[in-house]
Amino acid sequence: MTEFIPPGTRWFDLPSPFPMKRGGALNNARVAYETWGSLNAARDNAVLIVTGLSPDAHAASNEGNPEPGWWEQMVGPGKPIDSDCWFVVCVNSLGSCKGSTGPASINPDTGAPYRLSFPDLSIEDGAQAAAHVVRELGIASLACIIGNSMGGMTALAFLQLHPGLARSHINISGAAKALPFSIAIRSLQREAIRLDPNWNHGQYDDERYPEAGMRMARKLGVITYRSALEWDGRFGRVRLDSDRSDDEPFGLEFEVESYLEGHARRFVRRFDPNCYLYLSRSMDWFDLGEYCNDRRGNGEADTRAGLAGLRVDKALAIGVHTDILFPLQQQEEIAEGLRAGGADSRFLPLPSPQGHDAFLVDIARFGPAVGDFLNSLR
Amino acid sequence: MTEFIPPGTRWFDLPSPFPMKRGGALNNARVAYETWGSLNAARDNAVLIVTGLSPDAHAASNEGNPEPGWWEQMVGPGKPIDSDCWFVVCVNSLGSCKGSTGPASINPDTGAPYRLSFPDLSIEDGAQAAAHVVRELGIASLACIIGNSMGGMTALAFLQLHPGLARSHINISGAAKALPFSIAIRSLQREAIRLDPNWNHGQYDDERYPEAGMRMARKLGVITYRSALEWDGRFGRVRLDSDRSDDEPFGLEFEVESYLEGHARRFVRRFDPNCYLYLSRSMDWFDLGEYCNDRRGNGEADTRAGLAGLRVDKALAIGVHTDILFPLQQQEEIAEGLRAGGADSRFLPLPSPQGHDAFLVDIARFGPAVGDFLNSLR
Repeated sequence: MTEFIPPGTRWFDLPSPFPMKRGGALNNARVAYETWGSLNAARDNAVLIVTGLSPDAHAASNEGNPEPGWWEQMVGPGKPIDSDCWFVVCVNSLGSCKGSTGPASINPDTGAPYRLSFPDLSIEDGAQAAAHVVRELGIASLACIIGNSMGGMTALAFLQLHPGLARSHINISGAAKALPFSIAIRSLQREAIRLDPNWNHGQYDDERYPEAGMRMARKLGVITYRSALEWDGRFGRVRLDSDRSDDEPFGLEFEVESYLEGHARRFVRRFDPNCYLYLSRSMDWFDLGEYCNDRRGNGEADTRAGLAGLRVDKALAIGVHTDILFPLQQQEEIAEGLRAGGADSRFLPLPSPQGHDAFLVDIARFGPAVGDFLNSLR
Repeated sequence: MTEFIPPGTRWFDLPSPFPMKRGGALNNARVAYETWGSLNAARDNAVLIVTGLSPDAHAASNEGNPEPGWWEQMVGPGKPIDSDCWFVVCVNSLGSCKGSTGPASINPDTGAPYRLSFPDLSIEDGAQAAAHVVRELGIASLACIIGNSMGGMTALAFLQLHPGLARSHINISGAAKALPFSIAIRSLQREAIRLDPNWNHGQYDDERYPEAGMRMARKLGVITYRSALEWDGRFGRVRLDSDRSDDEPFGLEFEVESYLEGHARRFVRRFDPNCYLYLSRSMDWFDLGEYCNDRRGNGEADTRAGLAGLRVDKALAIGVHTDILFPLQQQEEIAEGLRAGGADSRFLPLPSPQGHDAFLVDIARFGPAVGDFLNSLR
C-alpha cells in the first residue's frame, strides 16, 4: 500500500467533503499537480494536461524536479507545449497512487488506507478535481485542455461539467465512451489482479502483494498499447540468447516475451493494484452521452449529442491507425461531434506504427500536430 | 487429466516409434479422424481438413456421430465442402486431447499420462501425423488440403514435407510463420495457466485443476478471435440485468464481460491445460521458411522462399480485415508466395466483421469462397 509521489509535486486541497458522482464523498482529499512557465497578467495563457491511467503529474523536468518526465519532449521551453508561451499545468488523476487521493491513500476518518472502501470512482470525479486545480490557480479560462488516452475522457467530462472553462481542446487517442473491446481488455486485466490470491479483496501489503496479477495486467496492457505492425519490425521472430532465456517449461524464448516481461517488472511494484482497479473501471463506465437522450428514443446514451453539447472555439482530435484500444473512429467521432456543436474542429489521423501509446514516443508526428494547434491560438 | 473424444471417432496408429521434429519420439501413438462421403475408384477425390488449436475431428454430423460438428454448415452433402463429390477427411491435431495422442494421453512406457514428459510438439509433427492418415486411407494424392488458423500452418508444413501429396490448397486465416503480436498473446495465455498454482508444473487433476488460468487464457483467446467492430454492434455498452451481474467487487457488469465468462466456462474443463500449452507453443515456433536461406544472407528464415518452394497446382488464401491474430497480410503473403512457386494462386480478403474466427460463423461469405474453389477442381 504505497504511494509513488515524484519530488517537486504540489497539491491543492479539494473542498471537504468532495462529493463523488456515483455516491459517497472524500474528506480532506487533495490533487497533485505540477506546472511549467508562468501565468500571464491576463490569466489567459494556461494549458491543462490530463493524463492516461498510469502517469503522474511530472510530465517534464521543471524547477521542482529536474528528472525527465513522461512527456519530456513535448513540454517545456521551446517545445511543442511551449512553457515560454503557455502556463502549463499537469494534474495527477484523482484515484491514482501518484500524489492525488486514491484507494492507496490514508482515509482521515479511519487512519488506515481506503483500499476498497474508497467510493466508486468516475471519470467525471477526475474532471471535477482537475477543474478545482484550475480555479485554485486563478485561471478563469484555459487556453486549451489537452487529454491523452483516459485523459481524453477526462477532458471531455471537464468540458461538459464546466462550460466556458476551456477555450480549446486537443484530444489525443481518447474516446467519448468505452467500447466493448476495450471494456473486455480492461475487465480481463482487473480479473487477473482479482484472481491473484495475494490481492485478497484489496487487503494486500508489500509482503503478500498481487505481483502475478499485476504482471498479467501490465503485459496485456502493453500488448494493447502498442501495435502488431511496430512489433513485426522491432522484434520479428528474434529469439533470446540462451543465457537470457528461461529454463522453466514454457518459459521466455522470444525477444517480444522478454520485452513484455521487462515492462511488467518495472510496473508491478510501482503502481498500486487497488488504484489500478478503480481507474480502469472508471474508463469502462465513461459515456459522455449518458445524459443526452438518443434521438431514436431507445433510451441509449447519445454520444454525438453529448459532444455537440460541448462549447469550445477550436478543437483537434488526434489518433493513430494502429490503435486497437481507442480506435481511430473514436477520435473522428469526437472531432465531428465537436464540429456539430459549432467548434472549429479538426480530425487528424496519424500513420504512427506504435499504436495507442504513439503519443508518448512518436514525437516527430505528435510534436508538430500539437505545437501547430497551440501556435494557432496565439 | 481427461481426453474429450467424440463418439464415432476413428483412429490410425502411427508408426512406432514416431519421431518428433525437435527430438524424442512417441510409442504406440495414434491419430483421430472422421470422414464424410466416399473415396472414388481413382482415389483422387479426397479433401483433407486440418484444424485450429481446439477443434476435434468432428467437423460435421456423419454416420458415426449425428451431432452437429464445429463446421457443420460447411461439410456434408450439398454443402460447400460437398461430401456427395468429395471424400472429406478431418484429423484431430497430434498433441490435442480430443482423440489424437497428446500430453493428456497415457504414455505406454509408464502407464501414466505424459503431462510435461510429452516431447516438444511442432506444427510439422501434426503435419506428419495427418499425412500418415492420408496414406493409410489409400489416398495417393489429395484433391485439396484445407487448413484453418493453426491448421493453415499445418497445411503449409504438410505441403513442404510431402510434395505432390496435395494438388491444391485452401489456407483460411492461416500464416506461414508466427509474428510477435500473436506470440505475445499466446505467451500471455500460457503464462496465465502456468501462474495458476493448481497447474503445478502439469501435475494437476480434476480436484486441483488450473481453472482460473484456463479461464484467463480462454478469455484472452476469445478477445483476439473476434473483433472490436463486431462487438460494437453486438454488445455496445449494454449492461447485464441486475440479477445476472456480479456482487463481487469489480465483478461482471457489461454484456461483453458475461459473454467472455460464458465462453470461458464452457471451455476450461473441456480442454486439457497441458495440451493447450503444447499446441499454443507449436504455433509460436512455426516458421515455414526456417530451412530456406534468406536471400540477403543474414541467416534469417526466408518465408517467401519457403512458400515458393511448395508445389501445388492451385491455391486460395482467405483472410478477413478484422483479424488481429493472423492479420490479412499473412494470407496475402501465402497467396503471393505460392504464386511465385508457380501455383494458380489467389488471395481473397473478405469483409467479415467477426475477426479471426469468421470462418466458423460467416458461412455466407466463406461457404461460396470455399465451394467455388472446390467446384473449379472438378
